[in-house]
Amino acid sequence: MTATLYGLGVGPGDPELITLKALRILERVPVVAYPAPETGDSLARAIAAPHIPDGRDEIAIRTPMVPGRFPAHDVYDHYAEAIDGHLRAGRDVAVLCEGDPFLYGSFMYLFSRLAESHPAEVVPGVSSLGACAAAAGVPLVSRNQVLTVVPGPLDEAELEARIQDSPAVAIMKVGRHLEKVRRVLGRLDLIDNAHYVERATMSEQKVLPLRDVNGDGAPYFSMVLVRHGESEAGI
Amino acid sequence: MTATLYGLGVGPGDPELITLKALRILERVPVVAYPAPETGDSLARAIAAPHIPDGRDEIAIRTPMVPGRFPAHDVYDHYAEAIDGHLRAGRDVAVLCEGDPFLYGSFMYLFSRLAESHPAEVVPGVSSLGACAAAAGVPLVSRNQVLTVVPGPLDEAELEARIQDSPAVAIMKVGRHLEKVRRVLGRLDLIDNAHYVERATMSEQKVLPLRDVNGDGAPYFSMVLVRHGESEAGI
Repeated sequence: MTATLYGLGVGPGDPELITLKALRILERVPVVAYPAPETGDSLARAIAAPHIPDGRDEIAIRTPMVPGRFPAHDVYDHYAEAIDGHLRAGRDVAVLCEGDPFLYGSFMYLFSRLAESHPAEVVPGVSSLGACAAAAGVPLVSRNQVLTVVPGPLDEAELEARIQDSPAVAIMKVGRHLEKVRRVLGRLDLIDNAHYVERATMSEQKVLPLRDVNGDGAPYFSMVLVRHGESEAGI
Repeated sequence: MTATLYGLGVGPGDPELITLKALRILERVPVVAYPAPETGDSLARAIAAPHIPDGRDEIAIRTPMVPGRFPAHDVYDHYAEAIDGHLRAGRDVAVLCEGDPFLYGSFMYLFSRLAESHPAEVVPGVSSLGACAAAAGVPLVSRNQVLTVVPGPLDEAELEARIQDSPAVAIMKVGRHLEKVRRVLGRLDLIDNAHYVERATMSEQKVLPLRDVNGDGAPYFSMVLVRHGESEAGI
């Protein structure tokens, strides 16, 4: 028997931003897996919830979320083994991925363990990059400009160099790094060029000029978009 | 009367990679516009074709495609005026966008002309970035790595510096710049780290290690993905 492993991008938050293709696969696979914190709900599952038929086998891929650390390899070994069991028994498995599976997605740790021994297909999804730009009403990048995507956890000196060096920057995973991001943009005199977007496309979405953001913390799912060195219209 | 301008991401090529949201809007707007070459078919319209109901008012936004040049502003002034007429008459207009509207999309030139005088909503779409990575079976970027998106038309020295400087790079719009891209990657000893993807998710999709790509030209819709300075698994 041959079964397929699917990595399904389910989009950035709004359940309507799933693709027809991901929906079709989701409606027919017998096993649905998704990343989840050690306790509590899975965001990927919440996004896809309206589309998951009743009676599916579900696997919550629970990994410890420790700030500044990535889950140990043995966690993914464990879940890869569970998924491998389903695939060997002929049951297709869809792993739900927030945004796009191959843009900072943890699905890649399962893919690297399973794609050599099973057919695997990755279904791209709407990423938070496009979603945040749409929410803010500002283009990410235009013409022949370079776009740099930088994770907020980068150390301060590298963050500053990367932002200074690129006409368009998306700072992802801002979270507890908000104050550092603000410091760096302040030094570069770019605070007024920065848009802050929190939980794009979700019901709690917030969009603000960075200068109007109070407090020193932000949720993990927050992004700062910056463009500089060009006309005010940003295009 | 108030009508809305929509920028609808229709995804990278496969009509199934449209979102439920874009589909819902497409099914009810009376006017559908899309970028097109001066003569010939529109790719964005071809992607959305199975989803466009009969009897819609259609506007082909025809712009000259001159290598190395962007269309003059008066072209967009002209089409913005035509769309403005529909909006003032109370008719919603959806502008179809290949991939994502705000990632190098020409929709931004209409948005900048119309969004101040009309309600406007941008619906993010699946971009070619995630689609090419999915097609190649290689993650774009992982953990806290920087991802740099560079247009192929960049001059050779900048292209080389950008690639050298970033652990993960997506070179877009490769087209007639293939030979230059290959030269740069050769000098950086990164040919074997590079994947070539042409027309991702379309029926003519091609995926090859860059070292196996023959010839010195590629279609506009081609991308080279490169990762370096990390483990072979790329994660």
